[in-house]
Amino acid sequence: MSQLRRDPITGRWIIVNYEKSVKPKDFLFEKIKKNENIKDCPFCPGNEHLTPPEIVGHRKSGRPNSPGWSIRVVPNKYPALQREGKLEKRGLGVFDRMNGIGAHEVIIDIPEHMLDIADISDNQAEEMIWAYVSRSTDLKKDLRFKYILVFRNYGKSAGASLEHPHSQLIALPIVPKRVNEELKSSLEYYNYKDRCAFCDMVDQEMNDKERIVEENNAFISFCPFVSRFPYEMWIMPKKHESHFTGLLKEEVRLLGTILRNSMQKLKKLLNDPPYNYIIHTSPINGHEKEYYHWHIEIMPKLVNVAGFEWGSGFYANPVAPGVAAKNLNKA
Amino acid sequence: MSQLRRDPITGRWIIVNYEKSVKPKDFLFEKIKKNENIKDCPFCPGNEHLTPPEIVGHRKSGRPNSPGWSIRVVPNKYPALQREGKLEKRGLGVFDRMNGIGAHEVIIDIPEHMLDIADISDNQAEEMIWAYVSRSTDLKKDLRFKYILVFRNYGKSAGASLEHPHSQLIALPIVPKRVNEELKSSLEYYNYKDRCAFCDMVDQEMNDKERIVEENNAFISFCPFVSRFPYEMWIMPKKHESHFTGLLKEEVRLLGTILRNSMQKLKKLLNDPPYNYIIHTSPINGHEKEYYHWHIEIMPKLVNVAGFEWGSGFYANPVAPGVAAKNLNKA
Repeated sequence: MSQLRRDPITGRWIIVNYEKSVKPKDFLFEKIKKNENIKDCPFCPGNEHLTPPEIVGHRKSGRPNSPGWSIRVVPNKYPALQREGKLEKRGLGVFDRMNGIGAHEVIIDIPEHMLDIADISDNQAEEMIWAYVSRSTDLKKDLRFKYILVFRNYGKSAGASLEHPHSQLIALPIVPKRVNEELKSSLEYYNYKDRCAFCDMVDQEMNDKERIVEENNAFISFCPFVSRFPYEMWIMPKKHESHFTGLLKEEVRLLGTILRNSMQKLKKLLNDPPYNYIIHTSPINGHEKEYYHWHIEIMPKLVNVAGFEWGSGFYANPVAPGVAAKNLNKA
Repeated sequence: MSQLRRDPITGRWIIVNYEKSVKPKDFLFEKIKKNENIKDCPFCPGNEHLTPPEIVGHRKSGRPNSPGWSIRVVPNKYPALQREGKLEKRGLGVFDRMNGIGAHEVIIDIPEHMLDIADISDNQAEEMIWAYVSRSTDLKKDLRFKYILVFRNYGKSAGASLEHPHSQLIALPIVPKRVNEELKSSLEYYNYKDRCAFCDMVDQEMNDKERIVEENNAFISFCPFVSRFPYEMWIMPKKHESHFTGLLKEEVRLLGTILRNSMQKLKKLLNDPPYNYIIHTSPINGHEKEYYHWHIEIMPKLVNVAGFEWGSGFYANPVAPGVAAKNLNKA
């Protein structure tokens, strides 16, 4: 029989088939094949003129917007939100509206077109995390912004429109719904138990052991007990911390490494699947220091989300998280 | 500039590009091509022995589980939830769990393998809606169930594993999260305004007119002001009604027709795109008579959901709903 499981933070239920799992080779997901002509890739070294002027570029030497960089941050050429203008919040009958003000940046993680996170060095991984932190810290200063979302799409079916490895950062003038839900539930838990729900989850995962994928001094990576998707992984700081930008220098490196190692296991086991990962952190001026706990959610794109999931917010997961972690660790 | 829009019921924000829209021919979605050998299709007439014994079969004559039917309802051969057993609700540290008890039925909407909702007659559409209502009414009697979800997946990328036209029904032992959210917000609205939020939305759409796709005496079909997806359509009863099973005989026919007509416009404009539709209705023993309003949400699968959407619950819609309705009406 399948099992229904509920997560205290999102209130989300999943149906998990823990008797027989879909085998890694039986998923029919998008096979990633990089076809793009590197000559035309706007993110490849030598094509710096094809992007808007860079916000950040790490180089040992050389001018901005020239080759020789190890990581580059540029404004998105086709931004979802734009930085100039006023919000002009208005009602429209039962609805609310405002202008699409925000920031939308692209982090070109590495110069190598053909590689991905799974293939990078410790230094490259550290630099990427450092870029996430420093861009977030900078954008926090704009008082119109309430939330900064850092995420990565890999593969067309996961929404990536360009092949070259890149992450994205969107600064929003409102706190998004999904974040509000997490804040609300974790506050309820905190009020009831006087403890952080995420800290309790870290403890439980560390005691159970069976769903852990990677671990170091500062972080654990695990397949959560209530995984929506097969081979979903979360990376969580062991120490309580509400905001991602609170990372210490040593933690930046440890986070880069555990992220790279987790993605390596995923790539090896499933033969380079598409995925999304998202950093969940507290809002810019939030007061959730004690009850919110930032983390990264990694969601491989192995199955299609169908009517049942859309209609219910319920997820049917064909691989028990314990089995997923075991397979990842064998990879 | 893009616009941010918020829906009072789901609390969901969207970013809509209302200056330039993606053209219908520029979406890169799955092209539906039916390849399955009809001889092996378990839902085709003559193959009745390939499904579990039918729960309902409409025939002018002939035995159950034999050809000659116009619509058939069967248990899902690979159910997400099973009917036999006890719930056995338990805690597991911070998590909750229970056994996967429920019902999972398949409604084989029509005998014709190659057609879809857009192609069926008024009578066939009516019969399909009737099956949704009567199966829901029957399953309501099982006291373990709290919610009944009726939905339809069309195309592989929308989660359909078989080509033959079919809908699904899942009876759940809990009220799903998505439904709870709608109930909560519509209650807040009702407490504040003493009116149903959905009734206000129907009024506003009928006054604005520009987003209406189809209309008859009992229903409107429209591209909602806060559409998450390009060409999303909602069908809503004009008269306030919390539960889908409250439909009168005449309304069953009108609903079938407006659903078929809306899907016809979608199929014609976008050249047969994959889609999901979901009936949103109140829980079985709910007390939301006054503030909840059942409706159908139709979500064409034209774009991939990416990290931004997963992380925020925010949706970037590349086609303004007003433009979508205009295009659908020209089709």
